[in-house]
Amino acid sequence: MIAAWIDRGTIRVRDDLPCPSLEPGEAIVRVLVAGICGTDLELLRGYRDFSGIPGHEFVGRVEEGPPEWIGARVVAEINVTCRSRRTGPVCASCADGRPTHCLRREAIGIRGRDGALAEWLRAPVANLHRVPESLPDEVAVFAEPVAAACRVLRQIETEVDATRALVVGAGRLGQLVARVLARRLPELEVAGRSERSLARARAAGLATVPLTAVEEAAYDLVVDCSGAPAGFAAARRAVRPRGTMILKGTHKNELAVDISSIVVDEVRLLGSRCGSFADALSALERGDFEVRDLIDDRLPLSAAPEAFDRAAEAGVAKVLLVP
Amino acid sequence: MIAAWIDRGTIRVRDDLPCPSLEPGEAIVRVLVAGICGTDLELLRGYRDFSGIPGHEFVGRVEEGPPEWIGARVVAEINVTCRSRRTGPVCASCADGRPTHCLRREAIGIRGRDGALAEWLRAPVANLHRVPESLPDEVAVFAEPVAAACRVLRQIETEVDATRALVVGAGRLGQLVARVLARRLPELEVAGRSERSLARARAAGLATVPLTAVEEAAYDLVVDCSGAPAGFAAARRAVRPRGTMILKGTHKNELAVDISSIVVDEVRLLGSRCGSFADALSALERGDFEVRDLIDDRLPLSAAPEAFDRAAEAGVAKVLLVP
Repeated sequence: MIAAWIDRGTIRVRDDLPCPSLEPGEAIVRVLVAGICGTDLELLRGYRDFSGIPGHEFVGRVEEGPPEWIGARVVAEINVTCRSRRTGPVCASCADGRPTHCLRREAIGIRGRDGALAEWLRAPVANLHRVPESLPDEVAVFAEPVAAACRVLRQIETEVDATRALVVGAGRLGQLVARVLARRLPELEVAGRSERSLARARAAGLATVPLTAVEEAAYDLVVDCSGAPAGFAAARRAVRPRGTMILKGTHKNELAVDISSIVVDEVRLLGSRCGSFADALSALERGDFEVRDLIDDRLPLSAAPEAFDRAAEAGVAKVLLVP
Repeated sequence: MIAAWIDRGTIRVRDDLPCPSLEPGEAIVRVLVAGICGTDLELLRGYRDFSGIPGHEFVGRVEEGPPEWIGARVVAEINVTCRSRRTGPVCASCADGRPTHCLRREAIGIRGRDGALAEWLRAPVANLHRVPESLPDEVAVFAEPVAAACRVLRQIETEVDATRALVVGAGRLGQLVARVLARRLPELEVAGRSERSLARARAAGLATVPLTAVEEAAYDLVVDCSGAPAGFAAARRAVRPRGTMILKGTHKNELAVDISSIVVDEVRLLGSRCGSFADALSALERGDFEVRDLIDDRLPLSAAPEAFDRAAEAGVAKVLLVP
């Protein structure tokens, strides 16, 4: 089959890869459409020394697996956990109710598992979610990043009392996080460097501020979706004493952090990763916010290298690949 | 008067300093005994470009001020805030109930205010707390660092569900934090590099572990009191996914932090600074834990440079200065 292939900081299209074969508890899914996210770009830059087929945002149709799933249009949670495997002993994290932190976990297209930038992929049946009929492929493909955005909502519901909020980064993830949060936090602004991205946020009804004009020590809650050292620094400056920073997005390198200032200002930092697909699919089905305006390009899978270049351009949000 | 004086990374004793003079809303306090803490050592190493009289842990007797305070034995909160000043407009932080984060704040012996390594100091009356009669000077002088330790207790009461806990750093602050927390968290261990410090923790009834033998990703709660990059790194490794790191103590330099791992593991980091003097004095008065075993030396104020050298030695906890 054809698939995108990342190896040592390069990406190419291979046509010599075997199709995945069925294993117990899993399904073979034909990919209908897949998206490129910031983590994929970081994998190409060397994050996690990744080698293999990337891609973890996709919509597909089940071709092999349990009879009740054949023909179903699905999305899939990316963490392959003890629950996904259904065999062997359950790890301490899964036993404690933290399956996304499973000690034996693989992650589709990120860690130990081939991803969705391919004609077919194999995924555990336990990870599959049926896509509601009303959702077009190009909306449902946002299920994974919208779930990641919904995770922030869950974190602030249980832990944060915020009025004034800022999302740093108006890229593919920041746009979604802002759209999810804006429904709960009316005093939300989006900061970014790209005027094109900020204009897109305004068109979606969000308040924006240039990254260089963010008020310091002024926000109860700041979500850093920038994936960039300058964005992290701006987010840190923006949060008020005893305020909360939620960290989204991956950085290939370590960042220099002024720990003393975090101590002195008693800032709270919360790492934030994967969220609930059920929350995400519900939000998309209700039409809580628009997502299709974030699609900047659709390219055939055979143009994966060009699609990665395109996705890395400033101001470009989502690039889709169609096998 | 005589006082210790820090300037550009040096410390000396001066005998040419004027005695502080009374100002409205303030008191003149004769220092009975003062302690040296980690922040003082960092100030000497250049933290905050401090120049002046250091010292913020002390017990003294009021000699000038409101009649009802004359002769009182007191300790003092170190943050001089809008509330301390009682005049002028109140800043946004004080108005929002965060006086320790006052936007106009000074801090005794740290920021804009001379400290307690002197014969006398001036302090706002609003910052004073009467010392219970039953507390010897050498116990009451721990009020400020015990308050800082009690702050952790307040933070975990409202935010953290922890069973297994670790305090990294068995120095002057770590010992106090561990003693305060151990009453609430029976599965608490103290990690440190100095066997002498760990032995002292064990003598106080605490479980200990060498820093190099700390189990990774095993603790629900880790409090970093090390003030050292290696301690921060060990604390980060020790906390489990979705666990909490509380950051105590000041670092002169920025630290390289793997932000991606904090995102992926969804770790929570909480900065933690000053706490309640009322909590601290109550704990000391009840005798919740011993503190006098932490006193390694008592030196005259005129030996302040030697006292700083002594306080910087590995395994040395509290060094007291007596004017």
